[in-house]
Amino acid sequence: MNAAFSFKLLATDGDARRGEVVTAHGAVQTPAFMPVGTQATVKGLMPGDVRATGAEIVLGNTYHLMLRPGAERVAELGGLHKFMNWPGPILTDSGGFQVMSLSELRKLDERGVTFRSHLNGDMVALTVERAIEIQALLGADISMQLDECLQLPATREEIERAMQLSLRWGERSKRAFEAAARAGYALFGIVQGGDDTALRAESARKLVDIGFDGYAIGGLAVGEPQETMLRIVSETAPALPQDRPRYLMGVGTPEDLLEAVARGVDMFDCVLPTRNGRHGLAFSRFGAINLKNARHAADPRPLDEQSAHPAARDYSRAYLHHLVKANEMLGAVLLSTINLAYYQDLMRGMREAIAARRFAAFRDATKEGWAQGDIPAR
Amino acid sequence: MNAAFSFKLLATDGDARRGEVVTAHGAVQTPAFMPVGTQATVKGLMPGDVRATGAEIVLGNTYHLMLRPGAERVAELGGLHKFMNWPGPILTDSGGFQVMSLSELRKLDERGVTFRSHLNGDMVALTVERAIEIQALLGADISMQLDECLQLPATREEIERAMQLSLRWGERSKRAFEAAARAGYALFGIVQGGDDTALRAESARKLVDIGFDGYAIGGLAVGEPQETMLRIVSETAPALPQDRPRYLMGVGTPEDLLEAVARGVDMFDCVLPTRNGRHGLAFSRFGAINLKNARHAADPRPLDEQSAHPAARDYSRAYLHHLVKANEMLGAVLLSTINLAYYQDLMRGMREAIAARRFAAFRDATKEGWAQGDIPAR
Repeated sequence: MNAAFSFKLLATDGDARRGEVVTAHGAVQTPAFMPVGTQATVKGLMPGDVRATGAEIVLGNTYHLMLRPGAERVAELGGLHKFMNWPGPILTDSGGFQVMSLSELRKLDERGVTFRSHLNGDMVALTVERAIEIQALLGADISMQLDECLQLPATREEIERAMQLSLRWGERSKRAFEAAARAGYALFGIVQGGDDTALRAESARKLVDIGFDGYAIGGLAVGEPQETMLRIVSETAPALPQDRPRYLMGVGTPEDLLEAVARGVDMFDCVLPTRNGRHGLAFSRFGAINLKNARHAADPRPLDEQSAHPAARDYSRAYLHHLVKANEMLGAVLLSTINLAYYQDLMRGMREAIAARRFAAFRDATKEGWAQGDIPAR
Repeated sequence: MNAAFSFKLLATDGDARRGEVVTAHGAVQTPAFMPVGTQATVKGLMPGDVRATGAEIVLGNTYHLMLRPGAERVAELGGLHKFMNWPGPILTDSGGFQVMSLSELRKLDERGVTFRSHLNGDMVALTVERAIEIQALLGADISMQLDECLQLPATREEIERAMQLSLRWGERSKRAFEAAARAGYALFGIVQGGDDTALRAESARKLVDIGFDGYAIGGLAVGEPQETMLRIVSETAPALPQDRPRYLMGVGTPEDLLEAVARGVDMFDCVLPTRNGRHGLAFSRFGAINLKNARHAADPRPLDEQSAHPAARDYSRAYLHHLVKANEMLGAVLLSTINLAYYQDLMRGMREAIAARRFAAFRDATKEGWAQGDIPAR
């Protein structure tokens, strides 16, 4: 009983877009932030608690899951939704990015990439077709094509070579995905081209010619200044079809999200809210707050008494400080929850602002809140 | 608006007792198991999730809390209930046990104990009166007297000396507690005497003469065989008043709980369900199950489909195995939850069995389930 995959553009305000993605496992309101569930878990959080932050879709990592517990194992167990007890939509990456960043001894050729597993040293082949197969075994609602993601800065030759390879991989990904005929499931292509305007334009144009259910902007947030990232987003988004979702991969800070939505992006994923939460850093209306700081030790105020989420209201900053200092697991759990809830709150705020055509005012007010900084302790 | 502390014996079956403890922060059905919230948190779990396992009361550790964040700090922040967002009853230990087991360079004298903090090397004094004061600052519903808890085996001289000292400390604890006049709050005395029948009897008799709101049996589960522990419980329980709760400190395994309830104990605390959960071990109707074991890797069955708690029903053993192998925080969170839920389930089963006067049958059936072992994987 899978609904067909679809994207509906509900409203626009400038370049910002308010939409709805419908997947085989339910709908996602956009702009949307996807918590990262690397190893079939959003670190430390029960799925119900992830959902309670407002998240409608999570991301799974092909690289991690293919190595442990293995895609065939997950399929035998009923797929990733059942495995991790997340009944909602799931997007999986193709594994390419993490092969590049995590594994040693990788060999890239036309077929795909071969690498040494960081877990047991085995040599593992991840071809374009295998990446599609793995994502089908996992049961991803949205699959991503395999691509080659470079670190920046890189030479124009390198960027062009990787972009052209990614395009050829995109074409083969589509053929493999269509051969599998997973009705109602989606495949996204990935725009590459580094920080080069012309190469990005060519990548976008040729991907659109191939035709995907949605388009990602990849190869950003890999070492370049925010200004460069936003320039590429500004140049790329208009080259993508209005009637398809746009996903900026691996981004970012709350400010990155605000600025990228302003430039026409619909979907995001990032480890920041959970990773920073594990390290004692909270995101909030008042900007980032480092709970390790001794100034919180006696502060009876919650992190944000106006938050929609109880985790930000029901515990004092002093308590959060105590948990972080004592290296208590609950500190990581609560701050991950609080941060995901803040990210979802921010997305909700953006969605409402776009629908009401007051996005510019929302952006200004939100940034003003961050710039003002945290309310000083009594 | 504190209710007076009270204990009501509702039913008995042999020596097993079904009762109700009423505290300033609510009632506790006994026999009861208290999850351990060492540093103002039951490790990894939100208070609502602890409550959802069925727990009605948690334990806090004076030793840890006095060192970090400090008792005065917790008091300034509104007390331990508010600090850790646990609105129900809290029992705190006196700190004595952990001074003995965790700190270096301790010096024991008539006043109490002086030790070097394991956190910063400071010399810290914990007198009998300070232990009572700290527990009042924390706002404990049930405070424990300072006692000297020996490791077993020990010589009779040592055991007697420690027992007599603990008695004198009990008397001073009561004076200090009464001087603070915390209406509706309770102080428990602690029976010591090692594995010596006569010394235990003397300790119990003299504590009853002093008069406490409840009586703990301390100095067990410190290295002696289970048989010795149960013998001491069997000998000590009848020496304690029928109309006061009896608390066996730091015990134990599910079997320990079953056997101690059979011998007239009402309350327990232990780190086993949470500590073992963090190490991949589950407690269940089928006995202990080591989720690290490779036999679970492809097992689609939940840990216990008949469990009253969703955490034991909604995740496959294969998934729990995966989380444990991948060292994912959620493995510790789910298994801690599952284990606490099993402990609470066991206590509920005992309460119902005592009320129905079928405790012996319940004990046999429960042990038979454990002995039968886990259902083999398909």
